[in-house]
Amino acid sequence: MASGLKHRVALALEGEDPRYGKLPLAGLHMAIVLSAFTITLQSMPGHSTDMQKILLGLEAVLLAIFVTEFCLRFWSAENRLGYIFSFWGLIDLLSILPALLFLLPDSTVLRTLRLMRIFRLLKLLRMRRAILRLEHAISSNREEMLLFGVLAAIVLFLAAVGIYHFEKDAQPEIFGSIPQSAWWAIATLTTVGYGDVYPVTTGGRVFTAITLLIGLGIVAIPAGLITSGLLNAPEEETETETTTNGE
Amino acid sequence: MASGLKHRVALALEGEDPRYGKLPLAGLHMAIVLSAFTITLQSMPGHSTDMQKILLGLEAVLLAIFVTEFCLRFWSAENRLGYIFSFWGLIDLLSILPALLFLLPDSTVLRTLRLMRIFRLLKLLRMRRAILRLEHAISSNREEMLLFGVLAAIVLFLAAVGIYHFEKDAQPEIFGSIPQSAWWAIATLTTVGYGDVYPVTTGGRVFTAITLLIGLGIVAIPAGLITSGLLNAPEEETETETTTNGE
Amino acid sequence: MASGLKHRVALALEGEDPRYGKLPLAGLHMAIVLSAFTITLQSMPGHSTDMQKILLGLEAVLLAIFVTEFCLRFWSAENRLGYIFSFWGLIDLLSILPALLFLLPDSTVLRTLRLMRIFRLLKLLRMRRAILRLEHAISSNREEMLLFGVLAAIVLFLAAVGIYHFEKDAQPEIFGSIPQSAWWAIATLTTVGYGDVYPVTTGGRVFTAITLLIGLGIVAIPAGLITSGLLNAPEEETETETTTNGE
Amino acid sequence: MASGLKHRVALALEGEDPRYGKLPLAGLHMAIVLSAFTITLQSMPGHSTDMQKILLGLEAVLLAIFVTEFCLRFWSAENRLGYIFSFWGLIDLLSILPALLFLLPDSTVLRTLRLMRIFRLLKLLRMRRAILRLEHAISSNREEMLLFGVLAAIVLFLAAVGIYHFEKDAQPEIFGSIPQSAWWAIATLTTVGYGDVYPVTTGGRVFTAITLLIGLGIVAIPAGLITSGLLNAPEEETETETTTNGE
Repeated sequence: MASGLKHRVALALEGEDPRYGKLPLAGLHMAIVLSAFTITLQSMPGHSTDMQKILLGLEAVLLAIFVTEFCLRFWSAENRLGYIFSFWGLIDLLSILPALLFLLPDSTVLRTLRLMRIFRLLKLLRMRRAILRLEHAISSNREEMLLFGVLAAIVLFLAAVGIYHFEKDAQPEIFGSIPQSAWWAIATLTTVGYGDVYPVTTGGRVFTAITLLIGLGIVAIPAGLITSGLLNAPEEETETETTTNGE
Repeated sequence: MASGLKHRVALALEGEDPRYGKLPLAGLHMAIVLSAFTITLQSMPGHSTDMQKILLGLEAVLLAIFVTEFCLRFWSAENRLGYIFSFWGLIDLLSILPALLFLLPDSTVLRTLRLMRIFRLLKLLRMRRAILRLEHAISSNREEMLLFGVLAAIVLFLAAVGIYHFEKDAQPEIFGSIPQSAWWAIATLTTVGYGDVYPVTTGGRVFTAITLLIGLGIVAIPAGLITSGLLNAPEEETETETTTNGE
Repeated sequence: MASGLKHRVALALEGEDPRYGKLPLAGLHMAIVLSAFTITLQSMPGHSTDMQKILLGLEAVLLAIFVTEFCLRFWSAENRLGYIFSFWGLIDLLSILPALLFLLPDSTVLRTLRLMRIFRLLKLLRMRRAILRLEHAISSNREEMLLFGVLAAIVLFLAAVGIYHFEKDAQPEIFGSIPQSAWWAIATLTTVGYGDVYPVTTGGRVFTAITLLIGLGIVAIPAGLITSGLLNAPEEETETETTTNGE
Repeated sequence: MASGLKHRVALALEGEDPRYGKLPLAGLHMAIVLSAFTITLQSMPGHSTDMQKILLGLEAVLLAIFVTEFCLRFWSAENRLGYIFSFWGLIDLLSILPALLFLLPDSTVLRTLRLMRIFRLLKLLRMRRAILRLEHAISSNREEMLLFGVLAAIVLFLAAVGIYHFEKDAQPEIFGSIPQSAWWAIATLTTVGYGDVYPVTTGGRVFTAITLLIGLGIVAIPAGLITSGLLNAPEEETETETTTNGE
């Protein structure tokens, strides 16, 4: 009996409930989105005391929902220890731990920890299709991503050292060290170009031009690999459909 | 007889008039472009009274043309109610409604409504090839666009919460809340980088670097899906060529 | 005899001289690059009188070379009138006409006309492979480029009207009319983001976010079509190799 | 015997030691990364005397390691002269020469030379897969890269001359010459858009819009070719696996 109920709960949390289908899962997703709105509202200053009470109440309700979800997932998991130490078990735990701190008196450290409630947002990714794609994106070219991550880091470092050499005398406040110059390298080679740091010497500008014409694509490769991994979803989706509770 | 005329008018409005071909449609397109110029000119300050009169007169003429077009399309439609409640029927209606308000006395609310005349511009898209491509772009990967739209929103939100955490104490005026930080996230992850908001703390800059190297591609996926949908036009264009009045 | 010489000259100008090969053509390319350097140097202020004399002398020599080239091309062309009115004939003419004005006294109008000497730079594109690719890039998807050019213009116009609506009251100096707002639309949707104009109202920022997430790719399509046209060179290069003097 | 040892050393430096495998190579890579950290730390101002001594000591140790590596590679190379004049031989030499200057008294010239220690970072690229890809990226479309490099240069020059024409009277300090305008062209056509230079005249802005819509893709082609060359790794990797010491 209990085993049947456990299986039923596991199916419901997977969005495969025989009667209500995706409804329980959709409810959880609603709670996650509501949680994101709560976090956003709490970050905005100038709330009235009433509003603050409403937000705290909402937070308590959401916390209760996620604690219940965590308990149900733990109870219904075939391998309980495996669940706790799995990626999603950790996310589920991180989603409730910071909020529990709301019961304690206020302090700056706690305030920061509470922000970790945003980990709840990652639970949205538990959607089967999304997670299959993400797994695929990361695992399918892990080796490539490492290689091009290192290459991007080298290009960024070389660009930082180069611009440091050209600009450190002309603008010692913003190109005064290699870490400061690395900020320029990031903002430039991703083409964000905030405009807070830019070369003013002729040498620095020529160096920037050459660096951009050559390095623009290399720094963009890691992000591009993630993107293409996400877009090229695996075709074996139907095969993995059978592994229902394989968290 | 009337039925023959109706069919003839419908064909003409589709750019398939047996005698004049695309001429009537081209005339309508000219009127739309002229309308865009009128809107642009009216937005510019410092017109003389004469110029204002000319613009108002032009607007009246254009309004007459679009009202006539709307009436003809309504009259010649096989399914009149279907036309009114179709996408293009709505666009046609929105194109003339705001301009009719010019007959009323001036007010701020009306001024805003008048700007809605820009919906006329969308009528340019009635071009068969363009609309086929747009439909294809939206419908062919609707599911993908939803998935990656959600993913982009999550990445933007996580970036906003992260930078809020790092910068809220150093720059409380521009990173003072999560919605304000979200503006930074949009400007940064699309690589626009206006330079009105940017991190100044070491933690915020390192976080920016990591976010850019990972998230750059993900935020660009929805726009990329629209683009690729537009570029990969359907090959069955010739087949749909037969459905002449299928608005 | 003259016919043989004409053919020889034509071959030499094509870089297919039986004895010197690409040497005459390479010499002309050198003259063009030298001309670009002369234009650049002349634009820089603070030259000594001697330097100015040297630059003028260099200009005279280069002018003589290009006048000679033009005369030789005209004389050796199979169809002389066809050459004059061909694209390259026009470029060749535009390359020498502005420089001839150096013989006239100085004036602002002439100064501007002289800048048109940069058309010489286009002569560099006479390289067979480059021109084949350019022709291919333009002709192969002329229809697509028109369609997406119109689409990009519509997106830019809609973005300009939208931001004008949101920001015209908050920032009347920089969003005071639709043309001014169009400047913002260009700088934003190409992700250049100079930072001279950006929205400050909440409505304007939300509109910017939505516009960017949707429109980013559409504005980039025309440039992308040129790029892909250039990269996908025609394979029939060897076939066209036989049409030696087909300018 | 010596021949056997030489072969063993060569294999170890290739990360193919029969007993320790990739361990010796990994150690060298660690030394290179440590060297990058040392360079970064030395660029930061305000170190205590103790810290400076530690950094100098670390530098000496790293120098010893790289000198030893150079000697071992030279000694174990089948063709010693070939190694010295090969690309990697040069990099190895450049990695130790600047550091040797640390033994000499301080001066500005030497300080700059010391920065050349960053060439050590390139040694990280000695990884077999990375180098194969880089070689492939550069050699496979060398001709294309030259062609599109020239094309990008022409587009940038034309953009610089154009904006110089439109803006030189309105903003003589920042668009006062073609080289200054070229800085704008680079920052704009790569979409970095720092915001230090931007057009303010109507003509200049229209020119910028057209230049961006057309030229955006062309300037990005060289970087794109490198990127695609890097991503499309050669499949004959296994075949080249046999050429063990072919530096």
